[in-house]
Amino acid sequence: MNTPAASAAAAPSAADRTQLRVGLGERSYDIVIGPGLLAEAGARIAALRPGARVGIVTDHNVADRHLGTVETSLREAGLSPTPVHVAPGEKSKCFAVFEDVVDALLAARIERGDLVLALGGGVVGDLAGFAAAALRRGVDFVQAPTSLLAQVDSSVGGKTGINSRHGKNLVGAFHQPILVLADTGALDTLPLREFRSGYAEVAKYGLIDNAPFFAWLERKWQAVFGGGPERIEAIATSCASKAAVVSRDEKETGDRALLNLGHTFGHALEAGAGFSQRLLHGEAVAIGMAQAFRFSAAQGLCAQGDAARVEAHLRSVGLPTRIADIPGELPDTDGLMNLIGQDKKVSRGALTFILARGIGQSYIARDVDPSQVRAFLEVERRPG
Amino acid sequence: MNTPAASAAAAPSAADRTQLRVGLGERSYDIVIGPGLLAEAGARIAALRPGARVGIVTDHNVADRHLGTVETSLREAGLSPTPVHVAPGEKSKCFAVFEDVVDALLAARIERGDLVLALGGGVVGDLAGFAAAALRRGVDFVQAPTSLLAQVDSSVGGKTGINSRHGKNLVGAFHQPILVLADTGALDTLPLREFRSGYAEVAKYGLIDNAPFFAWLERKWQAVFGGGPERIEAIATSCASKAAVVSRDEKETGDRALLNLGHTFGHALEAGAGFSQRLLHGEAVAIGMAQAFRFSAAQGLCAQGDAARVEAHLRSVGLPTRIADIPGELPDTDGLMNLIGQDKKVSRGALTFILARGIGQSYIARDVDPSQVRAFLEVERRPG
Repeated sequence: MNTPAASAAAAPSAADRTQLRVGLGERSYDIVIGPGLLAEAGARIAALRPGARVGIVTDHNVADRHLGTVETSLREAGLSPTPVHVAPGEKSKCFAVFEDVVDALLAARIERGDLVLALGGGVVGDLAGFAAAALRRGVDFVQAPTSLLAQVDSSVGGKTGINSRHGKNLVGAFHQPILVLADTGALDTLPLREFRSGYAEVAKYGLIDNAPFFAWLERKWQAVFGGGPERIEAIATSCASKAAVVSRDEKETGDRALLNLGHTFGHALEAGAGFSQRLLHGEAVAIGMAQAFRFSAAQGLCAQGDAARVEAHLRSVGLPTRIADIPGELPDTDGLMNLIGQDKKVSRGALTFILARGIGQSYIARDVDPSQVRAFLEVERRPG
Repeated sequence: MNTPAASAAAAPSAADRTQLRVGLGERSYDIVIGPGLLAEAGARIAALRPGARVGIVTDHNVADRHLGTVETSLREAGLSPTPVHVAPGEKSKCFAVFEDVVDALLAARIERGDLVLALGGGVVGDLAGFAAAALRRGVDFVQAPTSLLAQVDSSVGGKTGINSRHGKNLVGAFHQPILVLADTGALDTLPLREFRSGYAEVAKYGLIDNAPFFAWLERKWQAVFGGGPERIEAIATSCASKAAVVSRDEKETGDRALLNLGHTFGHALEAGAGFSQRLLHGEAVAIGMAQAFRFSAAQGLCAQGDAARVEAHLRSVGLPTRIADIPGELPDTDGLMNLIGQDKKVSRGALTFILARGIGQSYIARDVDPSQVRAFLEVERRPG
């Protein structure tokens, strides 16, 4: 029997939704989290930009699963969607694909007042966001992240960009979305390895400044992976952490750098592995966070026990924590140091790292001696 | 005899300098105008960013004349310059050269806290400015415009960008310089045709909202071309006009569109001529302004006599005012309409033009009927 109660249980209800606000003055925006949001994209976007043309940037994998839902939803809400397809994977974050996307959006006659919708993971979000920032010197965009990584990290905060042959995310813009729709139902079709990679960024928020959240994750991570209400709670807590930092420091002149915990080592490894499937972004961040804690412990800044606890939790969910966990060849220590120096989080030659005095006690160390980093990497690279 | 008086006359003195401030809150900056400023670039930049690395983006023509002066000045002031060369001409405002410039700046290790110096005309300024905006999501830049066009227009106001195959300046950023150094001595080596092209933008400021300035130009244009104090006065008046508009409306949501007088027609013609030496930007703007006044007169918005006076002045300085003045083939009316529609100054299909009720009485017309523009172009294209 199709009773009202059964019908209400089948469709996502308002009670499943968490809504957060990123407070940035006239650039403030909402993050909505919950199942079934892609099917509501049209109504939610039309409420902000009625009648707009919408360039939907997406990759083939995501398009196969979700593009039909989104296009239908947009059309039904009186919007005019045009899909712009890119190849899946980090290689699309390059100048050539950036040019293709911008040209396709121009061909779709996306004007000021229209918008760009990023439908996909972090690659699509970063690329589409930079294209929106540069198109006609800036049109609005909406993030519809479909990976865990994008939902808890890249879709929130306005960092957009592409990679250069000199390193990752070295070219881009700060360009805030006008809305983020994190459909948690979309995560059900993610490969486990990709989900796990995103989980590294979830754990990061605990390690930065929220020790109780890290302890909660140690107890509840299986439920987060399993897809219960704990998953929505973990995503909401992560987004709230990121939103709070971004509100305080939109352009990364101060506190925001804390979000780079694990990223300076991590980006160098990711670049060293050629931004390939050998090492996903979150896997690189997991190794980078474990390294940041080991480096902090080696410098006497935090207890060895905290570094061990970080490593144990990441390994328990199946994430890598050591350079030796990366399959295949990597640059030597000189090569890694060079990649670290090209990371954009540098200031006049001194290295900036996010180090930790303990779990939930990360801080920005602006004058890290490169020779100590080199010595640490030499030890790290030795076969265990 | 090398008397103190003679020596004072030979070197530029503070009395030759005009300084204006573009008021944009924390993004405010100075425009300094006068002879000999390139030789002072080092001291003036070091006062703002002591010890910085400076990526100098320039073209071969400008480099031959001025790069040595600027590099020496920067080194003497304790800065570390690295030149980045691009080919002269509008063709350099493309994705491929943008990528080259960004990569070269990364190779020069330009970090946040360092800066990019645009040494050249409008092409170099637009390209270098966009590269600075995108590099590490934004580093500071200084404009050292060496053409009249760049001194009175493109170097002031923060519009940066490149062209797409869909049209001119469709990709870029609003990115304000931290300083503009307009060395009027650099204009002495400009070819007459290029100076004249820049003069079109000078005349534009009179036509927008300053009828007395236009009347002054009608009387004094020969002295402006000749290089007397009238030239500095004309440049300063132009920069002050632009600075006032930019301060009111940084991102072109309102009044700033007035600066596009002549540019909607002009950009379409420039694109139609393939952004080539057949038609320089200022020449296109001159034709576009004459067309804007003729179109306004044809619509009964302004007196035929005003349109005739605009055309007469532009022709007296040697600028073109008619499509027939452009050598070679151009797109047909359909082609030009398509180029006008792709211009970024459009809003949901209706065309926005800057029209005029008279000299110094320009205004933004947001709902121009495309069929009237088409009919006007048909008449304009008929052989006179």
